[in-house]
Amino acid sequence: MSQGSSKIVPVILAGGSGTRLWPASRDAFPKQFQPLTGDLSTYQETLRRVADPALFDDPVVITSDAFRFFARRQAADVGVKATVVLEPARRDSAAAVAAAAAFVEKTRPGSAVLALAADHVVLDDEVFRDAVRLGLTAAEAGKIVVFGLVPTEPKTAYGYIRPGAALDGDDDLCLVDAFVEKPDATTALDYLRQGYLWNSGNFLFKASHMLAEFGKYAPDIAAAASEAVDKASEDIGFVRLDPDAFSTARKTSIDYAVIEKTDEIAVVKGRFRWSDVGAWDAIWQVSERDGEGNAVHGDGVVLASHDCLVHSQGILTTVVGAEGLLVVATPDAVMVAPREQAQAVKGLVDALKAGGRDEATLHRRDYRPWGYIEALVAGPRFAVKHIVVDPGGVLSLQRHQHRAEHWVVVNGTATIEIEGEAPRLLTINQSAYVPLGARHRLSNRGKIPLELIEVQSGAYLGNDDIERIEDIYQRA
Amino acid sequence: MSQGSSKIVPVILAGGSGTRLWPASRDAFPKQFQPLTGDLSTYQETLRRVADPALFDDPVVITSDAFRFFARRQAADVGVKATVVLEPARRDSAAAVAAAAAFVEKTRPGSAVLALAADHVVLDDEVFRDAVRLGLTAAEAGKIVVFGLVPTEPKTAYGYIRPGAALDGDDDLCLVDAFVEKPDATTALDYLRQGYLWNSGNFLFKASHMLAEFGKYAPDIAAAASEAVDKASEDIGFVRLDPDAFSTARKTSIDYAVIEKTDEIAVVKGRFRWSDVGAWDAIWQVSERDGEGNAVHGDGVVLASHDCLVHSQGILTTVVGAEGLLVVATPDAVMVAPREQAQAVKGLVDALKAGGRDEATLHRRDYRPWGYIEALVAGPRFAVKHIVVDPGGVLSLQRHQHRAEHWVVVNGTATIEIEGEAPRLLTINQSAYVPLGARHRLSNRGKIPLELIEVQSGAYLGNDDIERIEDIYQRA
Repeated sequence: MSQGSSKIVPVILAGGSGTRLWPASRDAFPKQFQPLTGDLSTYQETLRRVADPALFDDPVVITSDAFRFFARRQAADVGVKATVVLEPARRDSAAAVAAAAAFVEKTRPGSAVLALAADHVVLDDEVFRDAVRLGLTAAEAGKIVVFGLVPTEPKTAYGYIRPGAALDGDDDLCLVDAFVEKPDATTALDYLRQGYLWNSGNFLFKASHMLAEFGKYAPDIAAAASEAVDKASEDIGFVRLDPDAFSTARKTSIDYAVIEKTDEIAVVKGRFRWSDVGAWDAIWQVSERDGEGNAVHGDGVVLASHDCLVHSQGILTTVVGAEGLLVVATPDAVMVAPREQAQAVKGLVDALKAGGRDEATLHRRDYRPWGYIEALVAGPRFAVKHIVVDPGGVLSLQRHQHRAEHWVVVNGTATIEIEGEAPRLLTINQSAYVPLGARHRLSNRGKIPLELIEVQSGAYLGNDDIERIEDIYQRA
Repeated sequence: MSQGSSKIVPVILAGGSGTRLWPASRDAFPKQFQPLTGDLSTYQETLRRVADPALFDDPVVITSDAFRFFARRQAADVGVKATVVLEPARRDSAAAVAAAAAFVEKTRPGSAVLALAADHVVLDDEVFRDAVRLGLTAAEAGKIVVFGLVPTEPKTAYGYIRPGAALDGDDDLCLVDAFVEKPDATTALDYLRQGYLWNSGNFLFKASHMLAEFGKYAPDIAAAASEAVDKASEDIGFVRLDPDAFSTARKTSIDYAVIEKTDEIAVVKGRFRWSDVGAWDAIWQVSERDGEGNAVHGDGVVLASHDCLVHSQGILTTVVGAEGLLVVATPDAVMVAPREQAQAVKGLVDALKAGGRDEATLHRRDYRPWGYIEALVAGPRFAVKHIVVDPGGVLSLQRHQHRAEHWVVVNGTATIEIEGEAPRLLTINQSAYVPLGARHRLSNRGKIPLELIEVQSGAYLGNDDIERIEDIYQRA
């Protein structure tokens, strides 16, 4: 094994959203943060894959404001200390990679960067790390290294790479002859015969070298990203890129901006099993399956069926006498499609969005910096919520114009402040009433999660009837 | 039109349960009481079908103890004044029909009886009533009249009738040559060619005549049923057949006991569209369908699919790119099957029952004489319920050994009694606490439904921790 002068800094690109995995993945809580094939999200699995301290430094996560608390919480849940960098606007992958390179070069100069998508599945972590070790030599020597995969079938959904001459005498590390776009089925078959590789869209490079290449091929993006990093601010532990600078970056992909232009490029032939889990059929593909080819995640029962995927979040989901079906159930939405129609889910979600359906974008469970709130039932003038506050969590000091609230604690201990009353503790089986218009705040100073049932009552119960007076998460 | 000397008494047989329509139909709330194809249940549609006062008297409903409150409530909801007769034990259709005949003969002597299953769908009510009018002449003249249907396809799921010579010169009213069992596919095709009819299992007869035929062919059942009627008791408005007498009745079908034995039998050729809705494919068959053959009940969205059934109860249910699928979703269970596998749902439910799954038999919403209670969320030491109490409804005076309860009223006004406190009113936005062990009672003396959220807390929250001290519905 050859290793560079410093540890690799993993950069996890976790800002995407995805509708093809609806209803599990929704804009408000997208697929990279969802447990799709097991107990962990692909984001968490990615963090664990690069948690080997012999090879990797602590990771940097690039995401948007909307997902910052997921990103931090889910990293903490798998014991990973991540720096979470916030993109103030969506500017596609070129700006994200440039900012990541600038941030790493500024904070850990001389480092190599492994830029990974947060929503890919790799089934063989050790083989993956072997590929990274192999690529590192080339990266240290000044190449941008892309990860190719030896194809297992003529996929038309992926871009391909034509590998060139071997580097350093290792057939698994080559120059790149060409990048080619997603092929049709016949062409894809030709590509397989000719030894082309799938382009996974993950990269390894010296931060300084990537910045130099940006300087050559996309100096405007390099300048915007560097300035956004230089002027970045710290915000309750997050690194917030400067919005003015970052927003000047051109919207384009890293492939167009640099990868397909630079001569300093190499490819590793990855021999790990990999999927970009772009749609539910890909989830089926990478899942463990029973003797009949059925994959079941969550509370599913499959009878006299084969090659089906059942993905259930908290609702008994059954399939009988079926073949090749995708069945996904969540507490508020169900989706059924044949496997070969997996891509059509996007069109379905578009139709739901056009119809103004909340289920297209929002989950019933709404994550907040302090925990989460889940809708249980709603009537014309009332709503019932299940609220879970993490230890140390503090809700904003707030007031409502249209609703009163009843709180009943069912687990843990709450510290409550209600206007006109002395602050007090509320523990299991105790309740409190928050009159309409009264300032109030709820916090968990205990060691275990605080759970309470909130009954809201009033003529208007929208989320926008929260007047935030103070907020430790700076949402006021 | 020829009409008899008295009005026909409809007798609705509503005691069955059905698993082939799971998860909508469950033992605790079976299909005849479910809105399967529209807003009304098949039981309610049946009641409305025979609500024409020119032809029919008020109906008698025969059902079991478990369903008596559904039967009464759903009849009231469609404005029908039904006498609900309770079978103290399941003794199959012979005993039920004998008891119905005895009950009608005792309470409205000389009447004709129209015995109908509560879970059949008829699409042409007026054509149905024409068939009844046609049959009535024969019934008044001393025949038992069965309703045959002119078949539209060679169904193997139904028994068939070979019609004989026309009666009264009307080809649509004939003697019966033979009853034949469910055929195989080839035989069914032969039956169609030969003019056989489907046997719908519904009958029209003079009560006195049916009793006479029972006396000839099944005198033991006749005796048990008559005694059960003679010794029947009144129970908060229900007629309860005498349990000792009724339970001595032999378990057999009306077909075996009388219909296939008696010579005094005729058949009407029914020309109405009919289905026994035995399984979900039959529901699809009798549903209104869009141009692509899709039927959607409830909150369903079907895209680029054809010949699918979506039946949703309160959860957005979507199908994309599929053909001939049955998709049924309820708040706690989902079932997906190809249409041709509709019968396999029974096996699925058997497997769930064997696995001890509550969802196989119970709904999240549990109907009670006073309204219903629906589970919203449950944790290890707490549970949240949505309770709806009908105007006039009174819960039992009760006490729990293991739980305390919080009540928050969200609609209407509750009268509450809690041990150690004076009875008081609780209205919207007010709450009360019921300490562990305290006797308590909740009632709705108002004019609108009372809705409240109950938060239960304690180490054990099972339904069997209700000690009933007094109960107006005699469940104490």
